[in-house]
Amino acid sequence: MSEYYEYELTIDKILDTGVKSFPDREIVYRDVRRYTFSSFADSVRRLMSGLKKLGVKEGETVGVIDWDTDVYLHSYYAIPMLGSVLHTVNIRYPPEIILKTILQAEDKYLIVRDEFLPLLEKAKNLLPVGMKIITYSDSKEKVRSNISDADFWELIDSSEPSEIPQVSENSRATIFFTSGTTGDPKGVWFTHRKLVLHALSVSLVGARPPLNVTTNDVYLILVPMFHVHSWGYPYVFMLSGIKYVLPGKYDYGLILKLMDKERVTFSAMVPTILYFIITHPEAQNYLHVFKRWKVIIGGSALPEGLARKAKELGITIICGYGLSETCPVLTVSYYNSLVENLDENKKFLEQITAGTPIPLVQLRIVDPVSGEEKKVNEIGEIVVRSPWLTKEYYKDPEKTKALWRGGWLHTGDLGYIDEYGYVHIVDREKDAIKSGGEFIPSLLLENVISLYPKVSQVAVVGRKDEKWGERPIAFIVPKEPITEEELRNFLLEMSNQGKIQKWWIPDKFIFIQSMPLTSTNKIDKKILRDLANKSM
Amino acid sequence: MSEYYEYELTIDKILDTGVKSFPDREIVYRDVRRYTFSSFADSVRRLMSGLKKLGVKEGETVGVIDWDTDVYLHSYYAIPMLGSVLHTVNIRYPPEIILKTILQAEDKYLIVRDEFLPLLEKAKNLLPVGMKIITYSDSKEKVRSNISDADFWELIDSSEPSEIPQVSENSRATIFFTSGTTGDPKGVWFTHRKLVLHALSVSLVGARPPLNVTTNDVYLILVPMFHVHSWGYPYVFMLSGIKYVLPGKYDYGLILKLMDKERVTFSAMVPTILYFIITHPEAQNYLHVFKRWKVIIGGSALPEGLARKAKELGITIICGYGLSETCPVLTVSYYNSLVENLDENKKFLEQITAGTPIPLVQLRIVDPVSGEEKKVNEIGEIVVRSPWLTKEYYKDPEKTKALWRGGWLHTGDLGYIDEYGYVHIVDREKDAIKSGGEFIPSLLLENVISLYPKVSQVAVVGRKDEKWGERPIAFIVPKEPITEEELRNFLLEMSNQGKIQKWWIPDKFIFIQSMPLTSTNKIDKKILRDLANKSM
Repeated sequence: MSEYYEYELTIDKILDTGVKSFPDREIVYRDVRRYTFSSFADSVRRLMSGLKKLGVKEGETVGVIDWDTDVYLHSYYAIPMLGSVLHTVNIRYPPEIILKTILQAEDKYLIVRDEFLPLLEKAKNLLPVGMKIITYSDSKEKVRSNISDADFWELIDSSEPSEIPQVSENSRATIFFTSGTTGDPKGVWFTHRKLVLHALSVSLVGARPPLNVTTNDVYLILVPMFHVHSWGYPYVFMLSGIKYVLPGKYDYGLILKLMDKERVTFSAMVPTILYFIITHPEAQNYLHVFKRWKVIIGGSALPEGLARKAKELGITIICGYGLSETCPVLTVSYYNSLVENLDENKKFLEQITAGTPIPLVQLRIVDPVSGEEKKVNEIGEIVVRSPWLTKEYYKDPEKTKALWRGGWLHTGDLGYIDEYGYVHIVDREKDAIKSGGEFIPSLLLENVISLYPKVSQVAVVGRKDEKWGERPIAFIVPKEPITEEELRNFLLEMSNQGKIQKWWIPDKFIFIQSMPLTSTNKIDKKILRDLANKSM
Repeated sequence: MSEYYEYELTIDKILDTGVKSFPDREIVYRDVRRYTFSSFADSVRRLMSGLKKLGVKEGETVGVIDWDTDVYLHSYYAIPMLGSVLHTVNIRYPPEIILKTILQAEDKYLIVRDEFLPLLEKAKNLLPVGMKIITYSDSKEKVRSNISDADFWELIDSSEPSEIPQVSENSRATIFFTSGTTGDPKGVWFTHRKLVLHALSVSLVGARPPLNVTTNDVYLILVPMFHVHSWGYPYVFMLSGIKYVLPGKYDYGLILKLMDKERVTFSAMVPTILYFIITHPEAQNYLHVFKRWKVIIGGSALPEGLARKAKELGITIICGYGLSETCPVLTVSYYNSLVENLDENKKFLEQITAGTPIPLVQLRIVDPVSGEEKKVNEIGEIVVRSPWLTKEYYKDPEKTKALWRGGWLHTGDLGYIDEYGYVHIVDREKDAIKSGGEFIPSLLLENVISLYPKVSQVAVVGRKDEKWGERPIAFIVPKEPITEEELRNFLLEMSNQGKIQKWWIPDKFIFIQSMPLTSTNKIDKKILRDLANKSM
């Protein structure tokens, strides 16, 4: 009998790959702790032993409630490597939703940072019987709490490095819940195989122009670790041999300091966070840092105004697109062969689209009703296939059926593919404004409004209208006082230039101090829509 | 019921990835024909239809007898994409062995370039009953032969593009035979999944320093397409979006012209071919081409002398290592974190080792007898695991068992891992010279001899010796006349400097005009060993 080894695509292979080729590459958690890939791997294997001793078994789910810390990074490896399931708990949810997701995911263990303990202490009676809670503090001092069953650091310090058990590549590695602005959170989950293939493909496009990421770059990741695997970077950096900087809870002053000190060259984030960083009062002291900074923007569309401001600072900026359901990355706006020789401004305009499919992703624009494929520049629903899409909404066959109808994952996003092969998202299907039987692409409209110099942020939503069905209402955070009239004149001019349709111009402009945000720092259009309809 | 789409890692996904993002990227076959990725994919899909019409079915094997042409490249895609199996026939074998491999692989169809037809016409009666032969000429003129059943170009021109059938990622995509210098050729085969994962990992390391390959590079591949998938590049270039140049039959004058005209920046080859190119009479006219040239050397060890000569010409050179059994790539000498900050000369010395594992490869040095893992710098047998190793020797359970003993693929190569994590091959186990109970690492010894300025090429083999078991004999191709005495003095000096052991110095130096080569252009040590033993 042959003893052929069936190589499975499991998370331990990523760790092994990183450690073997980049043993002394660093992982930095704020100014709190530093690891090399090698010492980190050792620590992960000790945690595996500690978790086993505590009783964690294959197939059981372990939730984590934390900021972007070294503890979280340990969990990204140790838990799946045991054959257990990592539940990245969304800490931006209201407490009752957090508890609901913990119950839904059937967490048997929770790893909790000390500052989140009050939340659990209050809800103690609602936690499942037998659940074990592992607590920790940054200082490694033992946490005093009557609901703590074990100390995270002690689990590591009192254990020998574990052997690596054989795990099936098709077993579940992670679970988390989509932000659910449209109803109850839905669970999505991913296998080892999906995470490994996603990391390979995302690594590959990072090296393409204009980012040209190499092993000498330094990541500081600004996508929360509870948010779709931080877009895969906790695995990508290890596979790619790149130094990794963890910022903890986002404090933009500290982030600027970290970027300087650790020589950060690369980050990924939602537009709001880019906005916070480059408009930070201390930003002027970090211009040298911005000059070497490469940024991938995703999560929501990047307004052209913000993109130009970033470009002026010397930041190289591209965009990506994906969903919780898609692991997440589907497209990135690296230069394909059609764009690489365009002039700088045209290239830039493609860079700030949602991008072009990354290796192994198949993407189509289809008619939301008939399913027929659309032509270049025609708006329709984005549907996809790739090796890393969620198989289902956890225990929800009804919604799963809708998600996967016709053998394609339905993103629920409306968009088109331009003549260069780049995707433009014009709307979430649920945010779409339908007026007089026609769609008004709110993201496109917002983009044009954002070009007005006095506009800081903008969001357009639909308000019910007896005559037209819906009409657009714009919410504006101004940089300096603006009148409705000057904005309307600006948009008329834009419509004369052919950039928008005249009938898209919003019926009303509402000026507010700041945008309501979802748990993942995107503008919460549900709240704005409610507001718009109440203000009729 | 959910219509979840189980995404399989199949060859069609590589083609789709290339075409979607790099539709106008070029494929060039000599000065004969040019394609874009897009027109090539269309042509592949027409060929699929043509082959189906001819009767080619899922699971059936199609052999190809050809140089590195556009026809061969079609076959790399169209045949596996039908669910059929591509047999890359080794045309460097003697005719009777070629026939043997065709029978062993159970080829039902053969695609044959016109100039190879005489070989088959002579052996007509030995071909399996019912075998169909597809012929072609470069000029697209129909080939006159009474054994031709179809014309390749007609299959394409008379067909509509085929749909892409669903193929399992675990089905066989390719088969070929190892060069078998030690006996009968052994068949190895690879699934779609293995080829896709190999292409992903090889693409990833290409982007690392010092090569820094990007989508703007231009490959000219100098690894024959019958030889271990041309090291995977016929898939890598498409996945990576890189222009691809096919040289046909290797004519070094023409290759130099092509490199200039097509602005080639990147190639892979065995050392012998690098030697032929840089010592070509016209090489002096192409110095500007060498200056931008990045080269991966594999197949056999790169002598330091040749490497330094290439470096002087401005060629960026790194090495790789792998076997027919391993798809082939296992290691590449990109810069890992331990090497990237060394001084230039130390870096260079690591660049010309066999390299460090590429992503997902696990590699160990073990004692050939006990299987115990060796320490840094200790010589032992190289054993590996990766997602792209052959599952077996085709229909040879005995040899398969030996290949896979203990759950690791045994390479049969002796080597060690240095303190930076780079593999040094010191010998093929079968080429090893055992003298007085100790190994003389012939590759290391050859390397030192190659440093003597008057030496052009060198190979050291063992000659039977009554007292010592074996003693080393050196075969030398001189640049200018050398005496045995001056070489012996040089090696004594090297031994004084601690570079070799004194007792390694060969008993005899035999000066020859050129090295005998195997079918894959490596130095044929079997012939030299026979010669050494006859010359006693």
